[in-house]
Amino acid sequence: MKELERYILEHGEALGEDILKVDAFLNHQIDPMFMMELAKDLKEHFKDKNINKIVTIETSGIAPSVFLGYLLNVPVVYFKKSTSKILKDALYQTKIHSFTKDIDYQISCSKKYLNENDHVLLIDDFMANGEACLGAIDLIKQANATVEGIGIVIEKAFQDGRAKVEAQGYQVYAQARISSLHDGEITFCE
Amino acid sequence: MKELERYILEHGEALGEDILKVDAFLNHQIDPMFMMELAKDLKEHFKDKNINKIVTIETSGIAPSVFLGYLLNVPVVYFKKSTSKILKDALYQTKIHSFTKDIDYQISCSKKYLNENDHVLLIDDFMANGEACLGAIDLIKQANATVEGIGIVIEKAFQDGRAKVEAQGYQVYAQARISSLHDGEITFCE
Repeated sequence: MKELERYILEHGEALGEDILKVDAFLNHQIDPMFMMELAKDLKEHFKDKNINKIVTIETSGIAPSVFLGYLLNVPVVYFKKSTSKILKDALYQTKIHSFTKDIDYQISCSKKYLNENDHVLLIDDFMANGEACLGAIDLIKQANATVEGIGIVIEKAFQDGRAKVEAQGYQVYAQARISSLHDGEITFCE
Repeated sequence: MKELERYILEHGEALGEDILKVDAFLNHQIDPMFMMELAKDLKEHFKDKNINKIVTIETSGIAPSVFLGYLLNVPVVYFKKSTSKILKDALYQTKIHSFTKDIDYQISCSKKYLNENDHVLLIDDFMANGEACLGAIDLIKQANATVEGIGIVIEKAFQDGRAKVEAQGYQVYAQARISSLHDGEITFCE
C-alpha cells in the first residue's frame, strides 16, 4: 500500500537496526482518517473471504480493526494482555514472548466471544518474529474457530515471522513490508 | 443516550454493587457500528467546542475515540499505561490509583503529541471515582493544553468521580448514567 509507505517514510523513525517507531499515527497518536484508509485496503484484500469476526491484540491493533469491523459490519474481539479481576469468565490463554520489550506476557480471550462458528480475520499492527501472531492463532485454534486471513499493517520482512506463520499453513497479507532499517534508513521490499 | 441504556441492559452484567461488565460491546468484544453511534452522539454534544485533538486512556477509550476522531477529522492521542523501551521521548507522566483493580499505575504521554496549542476533548469508557479522569486532566495541564470537554460513555453516578472533576471546574458529559447496581439490577439516573 503505497500511501502507507509514504506515511511511514514521513512519520516513522528507525531506531537501531530493528525498531520502527510509528507513534505519530498508529501507536500513540492515531490518525483516524488514515486508519479508515488502512481498513478499506484490508476490506478489499479480503473481499472473497467470508468473515464474521475480527480479532486483534491489545492495544495497537484496535484502531485499524474497529474501522475494518465497521466496514464489514462484524464485531471486533481484542485479546487482552492482562486479566482484570472483573474478567472472570472461562478463558482461552497463551503466553507470548515479546522480543521488543524482552518480556513474556499472557494473552487471553473469554470463551464467550470466540467459538467454533467464528470465521475470523486476524489483524495486528506489526509482524516481526511472529510470536504475537502465533499466540493469537493458538487462541483461535483453542476456540475451534477458523482463521480466514491474517492482515498486518507493517511487516518487518527482514525478520522470520512470515516464514514461521506460513509454515503453519497460513497466508499473511502485510500492507507495508520493510526490508531494512539499516543506518536509520527505512527501505521497503520491492 | 437511550440506545446506550438499552445496550447496557441487554448486554451488561452487574457484578456486585459497583462493577458493571460491558465486555460484550465495549471492553473485550467491540461493536464497531455502535461505537460509531456513540461517536455521533459525542460529536453532537460537543458541536460548539473548537476541538483539534481527542485524548483518551489505553485501552477501552480507544474505540469510541477513533470514530469520534474520524467524524471530527482530528487526531486521537491515547495515554499509555506502560512505557515500552521504544518510547524514549520526553514524557508527561502521572500516577493513577485503580480501585477496580486495586493497583497504582502510571499513565504517560510523549511531549510530541500534546502541547499548548491543543484544545482537547477527553474521552473515556467509564467514570467511577474519577481517578483516571483526574490523572488525564493532570497530563493535559502539564502540557498546557486546554480541556474543551470531557465525554464519558458510562458514568457510575453513585460514585464521586463527577463531583471531584466538577470541583476542579470541568463539566462532564456522560452518555449513560447509572444510579445503582444494587442486587444485580442496573438502574439509570432519571
